[in-house]
Amino acid sequence: VCYLPPTAVNTTQRLRALRETMSSLNVSAYIIPGTDAHLSEYIAQRDARMAFMTGFTGSAGTAVVTQNKAVLWTDSRYWVQAERQMDCNWELKRDVSISSITAWLIQEVADSDGIAFDPFLFSIETYEAYSRNLAPANMVLKSLPDNLVDTVWKDRPPVPSDVLIRLPDRIIGRTWQMKVEHIRSQMRDNPYKPTAVLLSALDETAWLFNLRGNDIPYNPFFYSYTLLTLDEIWLFVHKDRVTKEIKDYLNGSCFQANCVQLIEYNQVRKMLSDYLTRPGVKVWIGTEYTNYALYELIAPEEKSLTSDYSPVLTSKAVKDKTEQRILREAHMRDAVAVIQLLMWLEKVVPEGKETEMTAAKFVNECRSKQKENRGPSFETISASGPNAALAHYSPSNETSRKLTVKEMYLVDSGGQYLDGTTDITRTVHWGTPTDMQKEAFTRVLMGNIEISRTIFPSGTRGINMEMLGRRALWEVGLNYGHGTGHGVGNYFGVHEWPVGFQGNNIPFREGMFTSIEPGYYKENDFGIRIEDVVVTVPAPTKYGHNYLTFETVSLVPYDKKLIDTSLMSPQQLQWLDLYYQTIRRLLVPELDRQGLTEEKEWMLRNTEPLQRSTASAAMSSFSLTFTALATALIHDFI
Amino acid sequence: VCYLPPTAVNTTQRLRALRETMSSLNVSAYIIPGTDAHLSEYIAQRDARMAFMTGFTGSAGTAVVTQNKAVLWTDSRYWVQAERQMDCNWELKRDVSISSITAWLIQEVADSDGIAFDPFLFSIETYEAYSRNLAPANMVLKSLPDNLVDTVWKDRPPVPSDVLIRLPDRIIGRTWQMKVEHIRSQMRDNPYKPTAVLLSALDETAWLFNLRGNDIPYNPFFYSYTLLTLDEIWLFVHKDRVTKEIKDYLNGSCFQANCVQLIEYNQVRKMLSDYLTRPGVKVWIGTEYTNYALYELIAPEEKSLTSDYSPVLTSKAVKDKTEQRILREAHMRDAVAVIQLLMWLEKVVPEGKETEMTAAKFVNECRSKQKENRGPSFETISASGPNAALAHYSPSNETSRKLTVKEMYLVDSGGQYLDGTTDITRTVHWGTPTDMQKEAFTRVLMGNIEISRTIFPSGTRGINMEMLGRRALWEVGLNYGHGTGHGVGNYFGVHEWPVGFQGNNIPFREGMFTSIEPGYYKENDFGIRIEDVVVTVPAPTKYGHNYLTFETVSLVPYDKKLIDTSLMSPQQLQWLDLYYQTIRRLLVPELDRQGLTEEKEWMLRNTEPLQRSTASAAMSSFSLTFTALATALIHDFI
Repeated sequence: VCYLPPTAVNTTQRLRALRETMSSLNVSAYIIPGTDAHLSEYIAQRDARMAFMTGFTGSAGTAVVTQNKAVLWTDSRYWVQAERQMDCNWELKRDVSISSITAWLIQEVADSDGIAFDPFLFSIETYEAYSRNLAPANMVLKSLPDNLVDTVWKDRPPVPSDVLIRLPDRIIGRTWQMKVEHIRSQMRDNPYKPTAVLLSALDETAWLFNLRGNDIPYNPFFYSYTLLTLDEIWLFVHKDRVTKEIKDYLNGSCFQANCVQLIEYNQVRKMLSDYLTRPGVKVWIGTEYTNYALYELIAPEEKSLTSDYSPVLTSKAVKDKTEQRILREAHMRDAVAVIQLLMWLEKVVPEGKETEMTAAKFVNECRSKQKENRGPSFETISASGPNAALAHYSPSNETSRKLTVKEMYLVDSGGQYLDGTTDITRTVHWGTPTDMQKEAFTRVLMGNIEISRTIFPSGTRGINMEMLGRRALWEVGLNYGHGTGHGVGNYFGVHEWPVGFQGNNIPFREGMFTSIEPGYYKENDFGIRIEDVVVTVPAPTKYGHNYLTFETVSLVPYDKKLIDTSLMSPQQLQWLDLYYQTIRRLLVPELDRQGLTEEKEWMLRNTEPLQRSTASAAMSSFSLTFTALATALIHDFI
Repeated sequence: VCYLPPTAVNTTQRLRALRETMSSLNVSAYIIPGTDAHLSEYIAQRDARMAFMTGFTGSAGTAVVTQNKAVLWTDSRYWVQAERQMDCNWELKRDVSISSITAWLIQEVADSDGIAFDPFLFSIETYEAYSRNLAPANMVLKSLPDNLVDTVWKDRPPVPSDVLIRLPDRIIGRTWQMKVEHIRSQMRDNPYKPTAVLLSALDETAWLFNLRGNDIPYNPFFYSYTLLTLDEIWLFVHKDRVTKEIKDYLNGSCFQANCVQLIEYNQVRKMLSDYLTRPGVKVWIGTEYTNYALYELIAPEEKSLTSDYSPVLTSKAVKDKTEQRILREAHMRDAVAVIQLLMWLEKVVPEGKETEMTAAKFVNECRSKQKENRGPSFETISASGPNAALAHYSPSNETSRKLTVKEMYLVDSGGQYLDGTTDITRTVHWGTPTDMQKEAFTRVLMGNIEISRTIFPSGTRGINMEMLGRRALWEVGLNYGHGTGHGVGNYFGVHEWPVGFQGNNIPFREGMFTSIEPGYYKENDFGIRIEDVVVTVPAPTKYGHNYLTFETVSLVPYDKKLIDTSLMSPQQLQWLDLYYQTIRRLLVPELDRQGLTEEKEWMLRNTEPLQRSTASAAMSSFSLTFTALATALIHDFI
């Protein structure tokens, strides 16, 4: 009954080996998440345990193996891919909720302590969600810190050997010593008097020390943990990757409060245990990004202080003046690359030789020519026609479509620059769009604008405003199935949490950057997404203080052909024209500097004000109103 | 240093007695919440323990007593009142967060297990919030099921003696047997296979059996718990208050699955303990409304299944066809009473003899003349000028202001009717409002309209839409400090959770009723609130299915004088005119039926369409646009 696709990976041997190991440890079911010990969204090859066991290489999923079953849970983005990559040993569950996994476990596993997991690969949050669901069935999870997949993974890739690099002074507003002092002052101010902060997510340590690495594709991170106390700093890292220069930079040879003691990466559990034997210690951790392997050591309760996010993540979320300036600059250069792509496609697509793949390659090359570029910030989504309806599609040799004037085209791409990370999506049509395509595009744009232009009190949560991105779509019964935006920052991961519009994101304060990216996807037909990066800035108001609004820092015009201005409010049109003025003001000098005359002409043509045509539309609609009004007045006189 | 107000209650004796009791039990600090064992918002006099101990009679607060301190926490609505009512034994903390209380406890209490509480007065949620905050300080709460205040409260009022009443068949869509079967089917469908549902909130039992009582002011409830299993029904109640008729109605003399076994109210802990000794039982409870005294019995974990709300509360939230119809009817009659008030005030206020008190009395009397009325649903808020800036002010002899044409007036009132509960707020001005008053009123109205007219997918949460109620205010830097709405139902408490716009409310489905009540309050000057009750109804859309919108069931026009139509969008004006058409369509027959000709004329005058004047405004603004356009066109030609 199982059709074996030719593209599937044969997992019979590795499953047999894993099951033998499980047997010897009395493990009835073993959970294999798709993340790493730092709960990273993107992972290095050596951490792709789920992919190794299942054959499935998508970025989200959880596998579970028992003695007679092997099951993968993943979301709708990946169902087709998972079926193509997995052999008949594996069953696909079209769901990703933890409750779906635990419901299956409750049904399949007989012994109450037979379910095991690697605590390094579970956040505290995740662990607690599993426990909450399993407890009513009287089942508990067994923590096995030595990963069972690793024991059967013979040719597991080694730790990357690239050395750590430090950010140049010209792009730094605060030295690592200033940041350490800032976090320590938060520890001292905390009423629970924590004695240490434990950092587990890779961008936490990278931010604190102004260091970067190259361990994970598209992400400038290096494997690390940090334990920061009031008078010591322990940096857990692969020490052979720390050069003399970096060691000096970190004061790595002394033991005072501002000396960074370098400790081997894999010593973290041992050293943390040692620290916890000291009298009166209390370790401050964020539950969303600390793995359970560290948390389970910090018992009893009085030794821990938990918040959703560590003080490093909440501090990092607010960009300082330097970070704001350079991130805006990175977006100016990035806009040039995207404009080059759009201009080039306009010319060459009618010739019929370009594909999703060649377009993706082109924009990556354009970015690589921009100053400080360090490659793309994620795999470019270059999707034509029905492919764009798959929300996170990236083209491959088998799937890549030819670009034509008959299909809409969506390109979601971004760059890593030494001074900032970018992420932008534009959707275009080179021929004649249908009325429905124009309406959907305009309503997605209206959503983008409504969030961008809204004024709100500092401290408002994104989740309480994100419906503005959907409202124009909801009005006609359309919607989209993904989130509305995520934080972005200075040379970190492209999704820089905890800023954004999700339920677990922190309230907006001045100086935060987020994407705004509503969309609409019509299955087997087309996909629309309009994504910009914005920064929260003060909004002067008539009566109040401490109000904010968003200022868009992405600087690429939208496809005029797809905008139906008659659907838009005067306020939306005014916002759009002001945005286009900003693009002109910032990009004319940048394009001049780079000597890109043709690009400048293209940009000027595509940022002409839209309100003119609206005024005419208003006039003709006025004629109707006037007639109705006149009739009504006459009626009253009679 | 303490000024003793003449209005204060002398608490010296009772504090001394409480402290002696605490001493004998080794209790260092005792927490006294303002709620009852059913976590009720309104409580009976015998449960007013916080008021007895402190003298403070406000509806929200928590008191804590130690051997040398006595402290009350309450919110800004009650600061003035608390200072007037409490003597020098008490200190006021201007905060209500649990973290503020626990921070104080951590500082004041030396022994780690010295803080005691009555577990009947804590929800599971509340208990967990305290525990989460105390744990990092290595402190735990001690549960003392015998309340310490009761031991020193000599003349504590007895349990009310009123008998239970059943709702008449004409207003019932589902018999109690149908409701019991509906809940049991949810138990059977639940993957965790609960064997019982425990009901702790008073409206849960009242709803399940279509019964009402009279134990709590403004709330038709009776003290009760229910344990519903798949083959038994235990109703815990004061049995001497159950008549022969009600006992027969409940099949109270048999022991099968559809027989309600009546058990004495105070046996609940003993009987629940007994039930928990049965093999394989699992009790389903809602954590927001189950008290900790019952929850602490349900250990270990495998014996409990928790959700935020019990299946009774989530079922009750969706009104059936009968409930929807009769609740709409109750609002028609209720509108007549409010219109009578507004019309009367318009006439008599200029004569200068009426006050906040006489106005409140008048509207209560108007309501009492309406069919099925059972009194007001809460104490009428009748507030003029600066008094209206206090969000939950009710007039007393000392505070009542004379009503004049120089001040704005806010009236927030509601009725209990056998078929429904109402709650409506109108704000009016009988003289000449300032520009700022008009602008603020119009923006509050715009907020009310924006929520009311929005179209959203079924299952959207109120918290994700409530900013629409604030957005027009935010635009000019104004805001309000309270929630945006709460559920309302058929002869229950006026705040019928878990429906509404708060963070812990459940998603909206068709057939839910909620209030929408944005406001604006200018300290020492005036207050504005516009509150209507709405019902979620299907919204047909161009492309989609399963979308909802709100339909307003409150039927009283807004004060025309305070509306600046130039601020409103065409969509908002259109919505308003359609709403006024609905008021006319429904109230003309109702007012005719009641023979209220003058009221009908008043209503018709106040529901005249507003768009006419807008059209003229649009015309004059068009002239400007036209001039600008012409100029622009000429400019292009040159």
